[in-house]
Amino acid sequence: MTNYHKPEAKLVQELRDIANKIRIHSITSTQTAKSGHPTSCSSIAEILSVLFFNTMRYKVSAPLDASSDRFVLSKGHAAPALYAAWAEAGLFPVKDLQNLRKIDSDLEGHPTPRLNFIDVGTGSLGQGLAIANGMAYVGKNYDKANYRVYCLIGDGESAEGSIWESVHFAGHYKLDNLVMIFDVNRLGQSEETSLGHDIDTYRKRLESFGVHAIVTDGHDVEELIKAFYTAAHTKGKPTAIVAKTFKGKYFPKIEDLDNWHGKALGDQADRVIAHLKTLIKNPGAPQVHPQKPLKDDAPSVNISNVQLSSPPSYKIGEQLATRAAYGTALVKIAQNNPRIIALDGDMKNSTFSEKLKQFDPTRYIECFIAEQSLVGTAIGAACRDRTIPFVSTFAAFFTRAFDQIRMGAISQTNVNFVGTHCGVSIGEDGPSQMGLEDLAMFRSIPGCTVFYPGDAVATERAIELAANTKGVTFTRLNRPNTPVLYPNDFVFAIGKANVVKQTDKDQVVVIGGGVTLHEAVTASTELSKAGIGVRVIDPFTVKPIDKETIIKNIKEVGGRAVVVEDHYYEGGLGEAVLSAVALERNIIVKHIAVPTIPRSGPPNALLDKYGLSAKHIVEAIQEILKL
Amino acid sequence: MTNYHKPEAKLVQELRDIANKIRIHSITSTQTAKSGHPTSCSSIAEILSVLFFNTMRYKVSAPLDASSDRFVLSKGHAAPALYAAWAEAGLFPVKDLQNLRKIDSDLEGHPTPRLNFIDVGTGSLGQGLAIANGMAYVGKNYDKANYRVYCLIGDGESAEGSIWESVHFAGHYKLDNLVMIFDVNRLGQSEETSLGHDIDTYRKRLESFGVHAIVTDGHDVEELIKAFYTAAHTKGKPTAIVAKTFKGKYFPKIEDLDNWHGKALGDQADRVIAHLKTLIKNPGAPQVHPQKPLKDDAPSVNISNVQLSSPPSYKIGEQLATRAAYGTALVKIAQNNPRIIALDGDMKNSTFSEKLKQFDPTRYIECFIAEQSLVGTAIGAACRDRTIPFVSTFAAFFTRAFDQIRMGAISQTNVNFVGTHCGVSIGEDGPSQMGLEDLAMFRSIPGCTVFYPGDAVATERAIELAANTKGVTFTRLNRPNTPVLYPNDFVFAIGKANVVKQTDKDQVVVIGGGVTLHEAVTASTELSKAGIGVRVIDPFTVKPIDKETIIKNIKEVGGRAVVVEDHYYEGGLGEAVLSAVALERNIIVKHIAVPTIPRSGPPNALLDKYGLSAKHIVEAIQEILKL
Repeated sequence: MTNYHKPEAKLVQELRDIANKIRIHSITSTQTAKSGHPTSCSSIAEILSVLFFNTMRYKVSAPLDASSDRFVLSKGHAAPALYAAWAEAGLFPVKDLQNLRKIDSDLEGHPTPRLNFIDVGTGSLGQGLAIANGMAYVGKNYDKANYRVYCLIGDGESAEGSIWESVHFAGHYKLDNLVMIFDVNRLGQSEETSLGHDIDTYRKRLESFGVHAIVTDGHDVEELIKAFYTAAHTKGKPTAIVAKTFKGKYFPKIEDLDNWHGKALGDQADRVIAHLKTLIKNPGAPQVHPQKPLKDDAPSVNISNVQLSSPPSYKIGEQLATRAAYGTALVKIAQNNPRIIALDGDMKNSTFSEKLKQFDPTRYIECFIAEQSLVGTAIGAACRDRTIPFVSTFAAFFTRAFDQIRMGAISQTNVNFVGTHCGVSIGEDGPSQMGLEDLAMFRSIPGCTVFYPGDAVATERAIELAANTKGVTFTRLNRPNTPVLYPNDFVFAIGKANVVKQTDKDQVVVIGGGVTLHEAVTASTELSKAGIGVRVIDPFTVKPIDKETIIKNIKEVGGRAVVVEDHYYEGGLGEAVLSAVALERNIIVKHIAVPTIPRSGPPNALLDKYGLSAKHIVEAIQEILKL
Repeated sequence: MTNYHKPEAKLVQELRDIANKIRIHSITSTQTAKSGHPTSCSSIAEILSVLFFNTMRYKVSAPLDASSDRFVLSKGHAAPALYAAWAEAGLFPVKDLQNLRKIDSDLEGHPTPRLNFIDVGTGSLGQGLAIANGMAYVGKNYDKANYRVYCLIGDGESAEGSIWESVHFAGHYKLDNLVMIFDVNRLGQSEETSLGHDIDTYRKRLESFGVHAIVTDGHDVEELIKAFYTAAHTKGKPTAIVAKTFKGKYFPKIEDLDNWHGKALGDQADRVIAHLKTLIKNPGAPQVHPQKPLKDDAPSVNISNVQLSSPPSYKIGEQLATRAAYGTALVKIAQNNPRIIALDGDMKNSTFSEKLKQFDPTRYIECFIAEQSLVGTAIGAACRDRTIPFVSTFAAFFTRAFDQIRMGAISQTNVNFVGTHCGVSIGEDGPSQMGLEDLAMFRSIPGCTVFYPGDAVATERAIELAANTKGVTFTRLNRPNTPVLYPNDFVFAIGKANVVKQTDKDQVVVIGGGVTLHEAVTASTELSKAGIGVRVIDPFTVKPIDKETIIKNIKEVGGRAVVVEDHYYEGGLGEAVLSAVALERNIIVKHIAVPTIPRSGPPNALLDKYGLSAKHIVEAIQEILKL
């Protein structure tokens, strides 16, 4: 701190003025919208003013520039203040702030990357810090650039466990290019937070989680300048600034009072604005300007046209788990693109993501047993197209991060999720470990591409395709070995189903995925002995589903189909097929899936017990042929 | 601690012996099963021995007795050790332990309440403490009984943020009848945990979260006895015992080594068992026995036959949000049953759960912004049929606790979830706050009853039915006002759809839920002017869906249906209907849902923009009539 100089009074006043302008904009824009969170904006006004006009280095002309500092507003409901800071910085006219929450404006109620200055959508609380971690990890370890990452967190949302997973991650990986700011304004939505203004408890918690904590008055511009300076000079650990603030600061008769969350000020607005104007010395355009990055030191990165370094190399009939092929594919794409990275939650020896760690330990990020942090970190790492992250764990455990994945789609992320150990076919570990609702979950994510590869060849190609696909992808993989079905040179495509078995005399179509695809093949072979032709279709992707191939083939066999999946009945492959044929007359579909909470037992015994084995598929075919 | 007496040497040796018997059983049962986690069992052997044979007060004859101490094994993969403790305590023959993981045995790979001594399923990590909190909160505040709650947590899973949400809850509510034991055995599944044996950091973190932390040697029976005694005499805060342990303790050449997670010992088993036998002084049946509860002081509780204290009282056409009717219904059932409770995550003024708090503050549990803790606490509170919990927040935010809800179903819980602010109809707050995948999520939960009441009358009855329904329930509610459709004496039933509009000359069925039901009614009225009869069906429950009524009505109108829902396309009402008609020829269904990530805007503008308004339903009907 030897070089620290106290800021000049003029600068301090200017930053105070900007803070109060941010307050006024937050009030007027929410007034126009008749909704929003002006009091939540007010508590962070000085923090934003100091960050955007003194501390951060960025380009107003290129808000998502690779070498610039990043800012994540985890408490997304304070969006009007963030929009105001960017407007004051000169990115767009201040008058545009009045478009807040209008249906044709990107200035939505919560931040969205539809805006050219937003990396990720926020608004579901407690998620910003994991994203900031991902950005900071990439900055420190891959970009090796000088940009710094700032994340502003509300005290209410710091009750979310995801915040503490992320504080731990930041401390563990010594992300000293990261500053987390806790806006401790005491008040939640419906009552005081459980810690209120107990600043010292925040400090102790943060310190125990491996962070350098600095307590400040969050409305004191000078203290904030000094705190950010100190943070920038703190090496070996991230800094947390615990800012004591007041909700509705400088809003007379509203400040620090209950029942003012999430509402425009209404008939109080004029009075409050009048008061705020008395605090402003320079009502004109800001006299200070954002600082640019010292240098453009983030390397240029190419994340397009990723290819397997060598084609799949298996023998038809060879027994291999698709999860094992995942590990192989991951290394192959990593060999061809240095920005392929893998993240896992202490499951790497089960998901085979450890193969990438063995190939290049620097490109594997261990996130330990903290799936929300795992997913959020990946979303952060993918920002500004810096990396192509693959995130693996058991399919069931992605349910832990459904909210993060949901927000990932809103954030337009390109993260690739890989879920192993799906369905009852995992065997003895029992239902807590079985992914039986993962297809329902990922299908419901807008724009998500859901791969369900049937063998090792298909898996390698699914992973290659995923790496090149915009938006969220999910690849569903099996624990047990299954035979290789496809030749090594088979060409797969998203939304293109493959007919894996057919004759001219087929009477029914069976559609299966993963283990049940193989059961369907067995059932088909069995019934062919009895002279019943069964066409077998592998959807390859469950979303988008290949409507055309499915309808064409079902029509060709006379309108009968059986869908069999190692998943619960709802939301999976069966309902994807039903949606595809919804407007077709004369198509009937018999759907077989897991009907109840399964037990522990050997994989094949469970497939049989829950009605998914070849024997049951044969029965289903015999039944539907009578209808 | 003045009354503490050092235990006699004989007792100490006996408890050591029991610990080593637990180790041997864990090895032999996983050997027979050829899978499982014997090393994870070994680290907790002394903890279980001391708890089950010295500390805890319970009835072996009635393991889920209301007045007995509770034990939650959060690290569920150590199930074989827990099963062994109960067998040694005399609940079932020791030889039955060899049925571990067999398909016809309830001794599953992870604990399940199919067993008569298990309250909740565990195995997805980091969830046990929230459940223990729920039990302890009920014991302290509702039962006002002497039973105590013990929760054993792995160090690997303590990386889960949910654990820290729960530690905070326990501290905040001063649950001094709760003891959390952290089994710090250093090793995760695939590598060392991020904190390893840094016991002091665990202690600091726990203390900063409001807990009395005691550091012990987890393999020292005397230290453990003393620690549990101290915990029992600590008032005003929960105690955390930080037990330093070793994975595979007393397994020579395996203890404290990597690569021994989750596997039977194989050819090392005989050698290890031989060594363990040398440590045992008394190889026969235990000479110490569990202590019974001092008194049967948990009150008897009746959670059956819950009824509204007065029938719904609305006027047809009256404008009211179904979320508001929820608050009314909650108070009405609470008036008739003292064990109705409500939990919320700082959304009570939006979800109207605050109405119960206003009626009886003792029956409202504020869980702050920590949805995983919120859901887990409710599951704990419901255990042993002590309460009927209603858990509310925005429908979107239940995605945060999908894993807990999934495990709740495995736990056979009776928790009722209530999700408000579903769909684009919430308006300006934007997509982060909109529940658009909640139906997909809850439909995928086995046995879950999914209510989607169409008005205030239906909502009151849905809540009444939910209170009486076994298994998980979910009720989906709207933010905006909608008109009352049903007379106050209308009788609703689970799985029974209601035809809300019909003529003899209908040409199409429209099925809608919540806001879209009202849009469908409007569309029907509109088209009737053009002489087109449109039958409108309210499903009331999306799961189970009323297959019979739906098929019958669609057939009556000639095989055409339109389904319109304020939800994404996948996994919701539309696919529920498609599943219902899957085996019907000559039925076609046009499905309208939210096609993409929505924007901020006024509710009605959004309904129109995303194709859900009456105008679009009219268009869809006109289209399907051409097919």
